[in-house]
Amino acid sequence: MVALSLLAAPDTGGVSIVQFLFSLAIILAAAKVAGEAAIRVGQPAVLGELLAGVVLGSSMLGVIPAAGQLHDVIGLLAEIGVIIVLFEIGLETDLREMFRVGGAAVAVAMVGVIAPFLLGYGTWTLLTGDAGTVAIFVGATLTATSVGITSRVLTDLGQMSTREARVILGAAIVDDVLGLVILAIVSGLAAGAALSAPSIVLKFVIAVGFLVAAVVLGRWFAPRVFSVIERMQVRGVLFVSAFAFVLALSALAGSVGSALIIGAFAAGLILSETNQFDLITKNIHPLSDIFAPIFFVYVGSSVNVALLNPASSQFAPATLTIAGVLLVVAIIGKLASGYVVGWGREKLNHLAIGVGMVPRGEVGLIFAHVGLDNGVVDANGFNALVIVVMLTTFIAPPLLKILFRRSAERAAEEIA
Amino acid sequence: MVALSLLAAPDTGGVSIVQFLFSLAIILAAAKVAGEAAIRVGQPAVLGELLAGVVLGSSMLGVIPAAGQLHDVIGLLAEIGVIIVLFEIGLETDLREMFRVGGAAVAVAMVGVIAPFLLGYGTWTLLTGDAGTVAIFVGATLTATSVGITSRVLTDLGQMSTREARVILGAAIVDDVLGLVILAIVSGLAAGAALSAPSIVLKFVIAVGFLVAAVVLGRWFAPRVFSVIERMQVRGVLFVSAFAFVLALSALAGSVGSALIIGAFAAGLILSETNQFDLITKNIHPLSDIFAPIFFVYVGSSVNVALLNPASSQFAPATLTIAGVLLVVAIIGKLASGYVVGWGREKLNHLAIGVGMVPRGEVGLIFAHVGLDNGVVDANGFNALVIVVMLTTFIAPPLLKILFRRSAERAAEEIA
Repeated sequence: MVALSLLAAPDTGGVSIVQFLFSLAIILAAAKVAGEAAIRVGQPAVLGELLAGVVLGSSMLGVIPAAGQLHDVIGLLAEIGVIIVLFEIGLETDLREMFRVGGAAVAVAMVGVIAPFLLGYGTWTLLTGDAGTVAIFVGATLTATSVGITSRVLTDLGQMSTREARVILGAAIVDDVLGLVILAIVSGLAAGAALSAPSIVLKFVIAVGFLVAAVVLGRWFAPRVFSVIERMQVRGVLFVSAFAFVLALSALAGSVGSALIIGAFAAGLILSETNQFDLITKNIHPLSDIFAPIFFVYVGSSVNVALLNPASSQFAPATLTIAGVLLVVAIIGKLASGYVVGWGREKLNHLAIGVGMVPRGEVGLIFAHVGLDNGVVDANGFNALVIVVMLTTFIAPPLLKILFRRSAERAAEEIA
Repeated sequence: MVALSLLAAPDTGGVSIVQFLFSLAIILAAAKVAGEAAIRVGQPAVLGELLAGVVLGSSMLGVIPAAGQLHDVIGLLAEIGVIIVLFEIGLETDLREMFRVGGAAVAVAMVGVIAPFLLGYGTWTLLTGDAGTVAIFVGATLTATSVGITSRVLTDLGQMSTREARVILGAAIVDDVLGLVILAIVSGLAAGAALSAPSIVLKFVIAVGFLVAAVVLGRWFAPRVFSVIERMQVRGVLFVSAFAFVLALSALAGSVGSALIIGAFAAGLILSETNQFDLITKNIHPLSDIFAPIFFVYVGSSVNVALLNPASSQFAPATLTIAGVLLVVAIIGKLASGYVVGWGREKLNHLAIGVGMVPRGEVGLIFAHVGLDNGVVDANGFNALVIVVMLTTFIAPPLLKILFRRSAERAAEEIA
């Protein structure tokens, strides 16, 4: 009934269309105002969009509620947003360039997973004396990297084509693949199941195999299919087909047990090889303008400011202490990953790469929620993890801006 | 939880993200394939999109279920679709041209409301012997005009700038305003309330007043506000602001008791006067390509094919007979409206205007649903109305194509 309410817009069951439209309008307007404010004080726009989300979230204004149909619908639009972001990155990614940094990216990803895991596990064990499943979960949460946040910051800074950015992007994508395997393991542990080595390997093969198979098959089929579609006459057929392909490949990735955004990224890599590349790139831009901010605001909206507010009943000094220590090791663990590459002929900015791996964003939130939902992590542990996730997400954009500017200056000096 | 499922896409509560993405991909692909097929057999693309919706609807493939969260979410996206369609029409509407056909449009709308109402009321009374609330409801349902369907057909045919098209468009919009008043009256009757004359007048004043006030105020404020926004630097700020404005004005229209699409149309009229018109028009196009088909497929999906299938248990010959008779009077009533204008100096194609008013589309469905929900119309009466609504919607596109082609040929002959 909701959607038949074209004339009178009655509030029948679930979310009213009027409320939904107002919420969307507020999210978009707030994202742009805050993004502009961020730019004016010398920060990347995405930081403003995340902060706009914090203000609109359920712990402050409540424009985006913490649960219910309106929350779910905005969440689905946010998913489309991050899918479009990764699709655009895939479109602009030169696969040969990616292969050239492939070794470095895998090395960064491996260290960026192992170091935070061990540090997180060890820290939790030392602080609480508990060395079991909880400590494993805390370590696992710290392994996440938000490719969406980092790539958006690099785009904002106009640094997407630097070698550092390609290493970060590649490592973040490898990290997403590893993340699926880790999540499967810890979810199994959380559910009390003894995960077998073969099932872990299978999960890994699926995650890697999907990306490889999709890109290999896609780059053969897509140019042929799209040259047929190009001959069709109905309005917008080429772009709509491309968009449907992105959605379908993302869904396919999800349904075989890989990540949605891996499918979206693969779709971008595939379509970047077609003759219709220019048209698709031009048309996806306005959709990205609308949907991407919804994603970043949505991620920001999951922040619970009460955790940091001494006047709130949810404020717990012990939780903050644990969160503070975890934050330090979470940052150190990812920074370490930047120092495993770039020592050879071609110098890389180690610190910039490390900082690029720091933001946990929505991926870290998923880990924390799985832990809470399965009863492995209690409310205090969950809150500590959420604080770490949000602070890593907010720290990275300004730091990246400073580091990449310095990097660009040094490169200019060397040329001069 | 739904929207945090970026990594593993679990099916937790409501609709799963994978299912949602697959459904969207299928809707878009089916719309374009069916639209292309329609063009190939010489029909407007929108007819194909509507038929794709019938096939995807719950009475056939069930890709769009009849209820539940997936249905609701697709319905919300469909609403955005029709909002974008009306916004685009508003953008392309020259207000002075509209005023020039204003008198004719109002005359067509008045007759197009009164004639179908009286014919529907009389027919129902004659056929069933019941002259009460049910007959009033049936008459009211037949007054609807789907401005979305008609304007899309005219756009498909490239006839949007003809004088006939402008009269149809103007009349359809006036009809939407009248429709709000009629819906208020019949809803009141359905609820057993005695509606007072002042409250009917108030409803009318709000519906008309919103459009006038929004356009007058908007055309003064918008150029000033957008020239400020133009100086902002954050990516996509101008287009995102314009889109947020469209959503907000649609929601505002709904919340004061006017129609969402009146707000969307007003937003288009307002922004057509700004210096940013070109940028907004160019950017809204890809969004329209994606969202408009969702609307037309969604409207098609509400068709219950079992009503027309002799093998189905829902098949009722008596209902079909009533529907058949109502269909004839529904068409005659709207055709009559075309003959009240265009007899003066400037000849108009009366039949084309009349046919343009025929499709009831989603507006007719709303009336029928209000009747069913309030218990005024029983299941058989509802089914009869739905059949009439769907057949008027499917008949109009091919007829319009023939009539506008003939009209163009005659004009060419006169010039020669």
